[in-house]
Amino acid sequence: MSMWVTGANGFIGRHLVRELAAGGHAVHGVGHGALDPADARALGLQTWINGEVDAANLNALAAAHGLPSHVFHLAGGSSVGLSIERPFEDFSRTVASTARLLEWLRSFAPETRLIVVSSAAVYGADHAGPIPESAVLTPMSPYGHHKLMMEQLCQSYVQSFGIRCAVVRLFSVYGPNLRKQLLWDICSRLRNEQRTLNLGGTGAEIRDWTDVRDVVRLLAHVAEGTWKDDFDVINGGSGRGVSVAGIAEGLIGHWGSKTAVQFSGVGRPGDPTSLLADNARVLAMNFDWRIPLERGLADYVAWFKGQTRA
Amino acid sequence: MSMWVTGANGFIGRHLVRELAAGGHAVHGVGHGALDPADARALGLQTWINGEVDAANLNALAAAHGLPSHVFHLAGGSSVGLSIERPFEDFSRTVASTARLLEWLRSFAPETRLIVVSSAAVYGADHAGPIPESAVLTPMSPYGHHKLMMEQLCQSYVQSFGIRCAVVRLFSVYGPNLRKQLLWDICSRLRNEQRTLNLGGTGAEIRDWTDVRDVVRLLAHVAEGTWKDDFDVINGGSGRGVSVAGIAEGLIGHWGSKTAVQFSGVGRPGDPTSLLADNARVLAMNFDWRIPLERGLADYVAWFKGQTRA
Repeated sequence: MSMWVTGANGFIGRHLVRELAAGGHAVHGVGHGALDPADARALGLQTWINGEVDAANLNALAAAHGLPSHVFHLAGGSSVGLSIERPFEDFSRTVASTARLLEWLRSFAPETRLIVVSSAAVYGADHAGPIPESAVLTPMSPYGHHKLMMEQLCQSYVQSFGIRCAVVRLFSVYGPNLRKQLLWDICSRLRNEQRTLNLGGTGAEIRDWTDVRDVVRLLAHVAEGTWKDDFDVINGGSGRGVSVAGIAEGLIGHWGSKTAVQFSGVGRPGDPTSLLADNARVLAMNFDWRIPLERGLADYVAWFKGQTRA
Repeated sequence: MSMWVTGANGFIGRHLVRELAAGGHAVHGVGHGALDPADARALGLQTWINGEVDAANLNALAAAHGLPSHVFHLAGGSSVGLSIERPFEDFSRTVASTARLLEWLRSFAPETRLIVVSSAAVYGADHAGPIPESAVLTPMSPYGHHKLMMEQLCQSYVQSFGIRCAVVRLFSVYGPNLRKQLLWDICSRLRNEQRTLNLGGTGAEIRDWTDVRDVVRLLAHVAEGTWKDDFDVINGGSGRGVSVAGIAEGLIGHWGSKTAVQFSGVGRPGDPTSLLADNARVLAMNFDWRIPLERGLADYVAWFKGQTRA
């Protein structure tokens, strides 16, 4: 099948392209970022348009390759911190791009199945324990608000125009090639052989850590599974919570370091104390998470050491 | 004080400009639609920029007149039907314009008080009786979804950036100069002396009818009242529900006609059976609705007959 990925040059996007191409699909992409043709070929990406998700670029893909069976929409803001620094940019990347994509699908490809990647940030704070998809949504950052607005827009197009759309809310996705956020920061400091690792927050923040290689398998699984006509929202989490301190310890262990960890005790703005998925929906889809955290962390450290040696 | 009105050339906008100017304020506006300078002066509008609510036009207003004490944001989609026909246009008018306005306020006028006009359409169907502001929001049209997304964006800017914003959800606003919707349609048919008035829906749809002259008094009242730091949402409704059939009867009576009314019995898409405000918030603000429905309908018929004679 012909599948399109917006934001295909991002961290999750690149893993997803590899997964879909390995499954025998023709994969085309649009989004921001220069991508070397050899690099694109190695990923399995047949076409890459470096630009906005807009009608002109979507038309160009359709003219060259026909309509897609599926569109995976990964383009959008990807940082809580940046969304606070530059909220309008985050709005444009997340909400306005989705508006243009939905309108294009409505006009030209109403049968296409749209898989939209959202975020657990829509849940906000105030959730203790596993969070079901039906929980009250109280995002606490522009990033979370914009993801929620994006979902709302999808729901509107499903309701009024019969667009076929499933939203997958991702939790804390990590894995090879992730060059930002907690795991990257910790490994970068370990490489510099800091005696003490000083981290923000309390260390007790609970997150649902999922390896990106599992996550892209899940996205493909959702796309190829049975579709309801309704708007569908699925937690893309494992249901297993581990604290930030636990992650730091695990990485230090795999690194083979004796560094001590210290937390500032001060939470960062926009940072909930717990974000853990109720994973009943994913279980019901017969999806199995294959990479346990221990292996994921070990792989991450191995990747990190390998790429910094190069 | 210096007050700006976006969408000042719309039905409610024009009434609001008149109200604010009569209150001694300097009123400037931006939005779509040609406005004759003499017409603008007669309304009390000192400046009118015919264009998008965007940084360039807001900068131009600020350069000429300084920063506003208040901005009334009325620009946006204004028709459920059009939002179904052209959803992207409605999104752009309602959501994207608000994103640009909020970003401009954040950057240049964070102390300005922003009064955003939203709609009872955010409540959607499934509400029997008076609806409190805290009700579950299940919009059923792109128009309603976009108004809700607009509110969400305002909430995000209040929460993360301390923007001062109150949202007023308007219900069924009618009054002199309204040249569309139910009252206009009925009067237009009565003028053509149709024997039977065939209307869509069941006639039993309950709405909270408010005269635009009261509504703009309420908006000014909210602007000049005490402000909380929190994001504030207020139902701009009277709490009194009257059916569509009741409105038809009232208009026919004031017209002095003997026309019979017939309803199709088929609801229109995006049209809830009941939208009635819980008006506790407005009452607590010591606001009095002054124009009872009977007088409002009589005035509307008088205005209609006058303008069509001209």
